[in-house]
Amino acid sequence: MFKVNEDYLKLRGSYLFSNIGKKVNTFAAEHPDASIIKMGIGDVTQPLVPAIINSLHDAVDEMGHIETFRGYAPDLGYEFLRKAIADNDYKARDCQIEADEIFISDGAKCDSGNIQEIFAKDNKIAVCDPVYPVYVDTNVMAGRTGSFDEKSETWSDVIYMPCTEATNFAPELPKETPDLIYLCFPNNPTGSTITKAQLQEWVDYANKVGAVIIYDAAYEAYISEKDVPHTIFECEGARTCAIELRSFSKNAGFTGTRLGATVIPKDLKSGDVMLHSLWARRHGTKYNGAPYIIQRAGEAVYSPEGKAQLKDQVAYYMNNAKCIMEGLASAGFSVSGGVNAPYIWMKTPDKMTSWQFFDYLLEKANVVGTPGSGFGPSGEGYFRLTAFNTYENTVEAIKRMQKL
Amino acid sequence: MFKVNEDYLKLRGSYLFSNIGKKVNTFAAEHPDASIIKMGIGDVTQPLVPAIINSLHDAVDEMGHIETFRGYAPDLGYEFLRKAIADNDYKARDCQIEADEIFISDGAKCDSGNIQEIFAKDNKIAVCDPVYPVYVDTNVMAGRTGSFDEKSETWSDVIYMPCTEATNFAPELPKETPDLIYLCFPNNPTGSTITKAQLQEWVDYANKVGAVIIYDAAYEAYISEKDVPHTIFECEGARTCAIELRSFSKNAGFTGTRLGATVIPKDLKSGDVMLHSLWARRHGTKYNGAPYIIQRAGEAVYSPEGKAQLKDQVAYYMNNAKCIMEGLASAGFSVSGGVNAPYIWMKTPDKMTSWQFFDYLLEKANVVGTPGSGFGPSGEGYFRLTAFNTYENTVEAIKRMQKL
Repeated sequence: MFKVNEDYLKLRGSYLFSNIGKKVNTFAAEHPDASIIKMGIGDVTQPLVPAIINSLHDAVDEMGHIETFRGYAPDLGYEFLRKAIADNDYKARDCQIEADEIFISDGAKCDSGNIQEIFAKDNKIAVCDPVYPVYVDTNVMAGRTGSFDEKSETWSDVIYMPCTEATNFAPELPKETPDLIYLCFPNNPTGSTITKAQLQEWVDYANKVGAVIIYDAAYEAYISEKDVPHTIFECEGARTCAIELRSFSKNAGFTGTRLGATVIPKDLKSGDVMLHSLWARRHGTKYNGAPYIIQRAGEAVYSPEGKAQLKDQVAYYMNNAKCIMEGLASAGFSVSGGVNAPYIWMKTPDKMTSWQFFDYLLEKANVVGTPGSGFGPSGEGYFRLTAFNTYENTVEAIKRMQKL
Repeated sequence: MFKVNEDYLKLRGSYLFSNIGKKVNTFAAEHPDASIIKMGIGDVTQPLVPAIINSLHDAVDEMGHIETFRGYAPDLGYEFLRKAIADNDYKARDCQIEADEIFISDGAKCDSGNIQEIFAKDNKIAVCDPVYPVYVDTNVMAGRTGSFDEKSETWSDVIYMPCTEATNFAPELPKETPDLIYLCFPNNPTGSTITKAQLQEWVDYANKVGAVIIYDAAYEAYISEKDVPHTIFECEGARTCAIELRSFSKNAGFTGTRLGATVIPKDLKSGDVMLHSLWARRHGTKYNGAPYIIQRAGEAVYSPEGKAQLKDQVAYYMNNAKCIMEGLASAGFSVSGGVNAPYIWMKTPDKMTSWQFFDYLLEKANVVGTPGSGFGPSGEGYFRLTAFNTYENTVEAIKRMQKL
């Protein structure tokens, strides 16, 4: 008689954003006239820019003619895209990453969920608290997290690194030594960042203790300050301890277009085994590449027109972030993030819990945000707002919140 | 100190098709004037049909305007595509499968590799021999297959079901009871099929012993004979024991466009746990949906124009299959398959091993096929040819083989 993977059954409720979706749908059904503004899930609203649209049309035409039709893509991605990423995201910043160290995928969420698979089951993970739920949940599903304690809302075999007001929402080096360290800067959900010197400390620490840093750089395009690193490979020694996840979702609006990339330097080894080889084997065996036309769209992100158009798109969202930050601060809310990231992290007023404030905001202002506690116990009493809505909706939402 | 997943290190060499690719590239580099005809990897050559191209262009345009732009897709796929599949592939055949039992993905290879994850590690798998390597390799990576025996070229914890000339290339019910049974009909690599009555025996068996059948229907569009089932859900009782994998790669030429679907009936349970819920949770946590524009392309497969154009495309490839079958038979080769499938399974001549014949054919005829032994020990002495090349190349390849 077949049996199911018991580790799946340990998962807490359903995925955070599915839960929010259900709550919002229920509210909308009961209040058909309410004009709900969604600033919860980090989904974008601006259309793909013309350079990308043109590239997509061209690639579609190629697929319609036998001379230019493309079947199976190279396992690890088309050379044209891997080279564009290597040149623009790494070599242009004096980081030594080669095209063949870059793996193209259908998104950073998939990669951040799948990457744990190439590590031993008894490796211990360390995560920031609060944290993007995918890092923890996928390790729960792999049986790597021990048992869940209902009181502390933590897993017995996970090292939590609290990111609170006291630490300026940055993690401190853990007391217990981890094997895998998940870091995400600019951070989801807090919108916080760390300096290059701070990140260098993490790289030195990982090399010292023999840990791998899984570095999620999905929000890199939103960095506005000088001393904030755009990639972990700006740090010396990162090639022997770091894997970097890159997304096209937020810098180019690909949430519904799906494209990502993972960088594994060939110097990152366990004994003689390159993690690069293991990930290549996973790609070859369980994956068949991102669609050709989508990879061409990714290439357009790095064209001169694409770069210029996307710079404007990021500026548009960051203007929203500024509007949220200033509007809420002037109304007496305590807010952070929003300067190098499209996320604003606010303290809930009147000591409400995160979910109480979620319900209150939905009910009274018809505005949807994300409860901070959904990202981990240290997120309790916080709330995440995203800058990804339209400017008009953002202004309207802040007006409503100011009236509360 | 971090450690790697030791189960990955148990994998045999690299993925079969990567190996073939390397061999062919080496030969091509050494023989720059050779006109190599590829009939190895099951990749298609005909361009996407006009109905699909039009649909792609329309969807690209939607992504370029704020009113019609689409961000994150629904976790399990767009309703329009799930409904098209439910209506056309199931309800039209009187099979009771609802749209919300269908999960859209970026391909059947990914799904066939990932599906094992929702089952317990100590579940025992049964596979046909020869078999599509992904079923076995992904179970090796999950630590489910025991140790490899170099002599027999088998895994200690895998039940092999030989599909040989003696059994008409169909598997027989295994003596040892499995928990998971992988079946693929029309078969890759042998091109063989089983009748609806034969498949019903498997469904009855699975229900009796409490096993799950993972049924790969990727080649369903190539069925030409009446008594061959197009889906396992034509069989009574399949809703309590079967998962079906569907592909758009071969029926619509999506090898480089990437789209698939997996069907898990809500009646398929272990105790109270629906496998449907576990797969939904996996999709929600580790996946972010297929691109919107690709899902629209999938919808076009079911439009009246799409259906007509794809019927012609399948007929084109099946004419190639006929040409291969007849051409090789007349030259004295022993061939099977090719009637309900785009694959021709031939015996190697002169008792050559599969890889000897691969090298011989590449060297003497500059034709690439797939060594049968790459699919499992019972594939030794066989060779797979695909009908997916152009008609001109197919005719030329057969001419060269006839001269050998």
